[in-house]
Amino acid sequence: MSARSYAIIGTGAVGGFYGGLLARAGFDVHFLLHSDYDHVRRHGLRVDSVNGDFTLPRVHAHARAEDLPAVDVTLVALKTTRNPLLQELLSAPTRGGGIVVMFQNGLGNEAQAARIVGPRRVLGALCFLCSNKVGPGHIRHLDYGFVTLAEYSPDGRPAGVSDRARGVCADLARAGVQVETADDLVLTRWQKLVWNVPFNGLSVVLDARIDEIMADPASCALAEAIMVEVAAGAAAQGRTIDEAFLRNRLALTRKMEPYLTSMKLDYDRGREMEVEAIFGAPLRAARAGGVECPRIAMLYDQLRFLDARNRAEA
Amino acid sequence: MSARSYAIIGTGAVGGFYGGLLARAGFDVHFLLHSDYDHVRRHGLRVDSVNGDFTLPRVHAHARAEDLPAVDVTLVALKTTRNPLLQELLSAPTRGGGIVVMFQNGLGNEAQAARIVGPRRVLGALCFLCSNKVGPGHIRHLDYGFVTLAEYSPDGRPAGVSDRARGVCADLARAGVQVETADDLVLTRWQKLVWNVPFNGLSVVLDARIDEIMADPASCALAEAIMVEVAAGAAAQGRTIDEAFLRNRLALTRKMEPYLTSMKLDYDRGREMEVEAIFGAPLRAARAGGVECPRIAMLYDQLRFLDARNRAEA
Repeated sequence: MSARSYAIIGTGAVGGFYGGLLARAGFDVHFLLHSDYDHVRRHGLRVDSVNGDFTLPRVHAHARAEDLPAVDVTLVALKTTRNPLLQELLSAPTRGGGIVVMFQNGLGNEAQAARIVGPRRVLGALCFLCSNKVGPGHIRHLDYGFVTLAEYSPDGRPAGVSDRARGVCADLARAGVQVETADDLVLTRWQKLVWNVPFNGLSVVLDARIDEIMADPASCALAEAIMVEVAAGAAAQGRTIDEAFLRNRLALTRKMEPYLTSMKLDYDRGREMEVEAIFGAPLRAARAGGVECPRIAMLYDQLRFLDARNRAEA
Repeated sequence: MSARSYAIIGTGAVGGFYGGLLARAGFDVHFLLHSDYDHVRRHGLRVDSVNGDFTLPRVHAHARAEDLPAVDVTLVALKTTRNPLLQELLSAPTRGGGIVVMFQNGLGNEAQAARIVGPRRVLGALCFLCSNKVGPGHIRHLDYGFVTLAEYSPDGRPAGVSDRARGVCADLARAGVQVETADDLVLTRWQKLVWNVPFNGLSVVLDARIDEIMADPASCALAEAIMVEVAAGAAAQGRTIDEAFLRNRLALTRKMEPYLTSMKLDYDRGREMEVEAIFGAPLRAARAGGVECPRIAMLYDQLRFLDARNRAEA
């Protein structure tokens, strides 16, 4: 078969980075842009990366979703707070039967895409990535970048590894991404939450960088206690996240460069935070399985207060 | 008997207010002052109160604890973080056999005083007061002010109402304070924590006034959930705080004027917060009784992080 074509919905810290790598590798990549459209159309995309900087002087830039061509793979890297727009954003690029890969944080996003394109055309992607958008069409990649791809299944059971998952995996690998497939999307989503829940939440509530949280005994112990609650939430959905996994994530975090989380950057810029996808949805899933997560519930309350005030002030 | 004499250790928002009222009522009151000594010696004490402003142009001001006369009642209104100084501060005013009344927040303070002057000479005082020190020798009383006095007993059991508690109660009443006695210090301490734990803690962590916390559904629900944990901690020490009490405290709080808690003021001024007395000691007491309070534990961790950073920066 010929090389797969891609559409990138949301050309920010995540979509700009992975889409940029795919375009650099020669794939046909179409970027949907909003405020950066004019800049990127004229100057292209710039990625400053710990793995080597690169610039793509000419990319396929689109200002309107309906102008996107039908592609093989639509990569959704929007903030989850904008998912109410998915219906309108997905119809053009998926009209030829292409698949959708949800490069988003939190729980429940694949189900939202599946309601639009049908359940057998959705993958989830988890990325462990430190990157920020620092200017129009300008991404700064600070650390990491590995991706896990997994098939969505409407009943929540492990769906195995499909050929299309393997195909996207091969493309990303060719683009230089460290990538793997997993057969259980729900498990990998919870594994990602192990990091995102404590560190996105505490970075905002404590107005702190990750290295500050890790350096203080009280906040580091709190982050760990929250990780344990995430693991309990996973168990409520029948998934096991063991202590070794938590220890490994803490060890990785300890080695991170001074870093502001994406949620903290959103907060500092007066933007809506992904509170529902990262906190509300997991809490509800845990509770549906009979598990209470009091520290996560408290973070959720604190973040909703801060988000409401922040947006009222912005 | 002749009118009781008083020493006020800590002439701030609390000690300045109640000491000022006692002095205005004609009691012999000796104020221990630190940075405000020169100002108060020359200009006296000023109290701007919702119940009527008053100024005491001449008060007994002392710069050193050893210069305090032996008095009948030593009222301790220091911040609990300064309790390591109690040994040195209490010896002169209590040398004639006078009693000590601990006008402090949190748990465990009476035991600290009892270790110095002996267990049969200590009362606890709980005040529900909105006041701030706004300048040298200048107190602003915004709202409330009622006091509950109770006898300390080393075994933690209700000690009944002693004659000396009745005496101090009568003096405060004569000075215009709404005051009552209680026979169970431990219960009244936990009742006070019902307010102090959620509102002191959240006002700092969320950088918020009380009215903001009460106006937002998420933070208001969180404050209530924390109150329920305080009640569970009280139950671990065999004390019952029922739902009606919590509802009443919430209703009082809802009617408060826009107000920054004392902990928030300390934090904003780069001063040490009373984290151990208000959070650490109650958590340890609850845990000793087999009760976990995860939201209070989380506040404790968050506040220790913020306190350490704040003082490092100050």
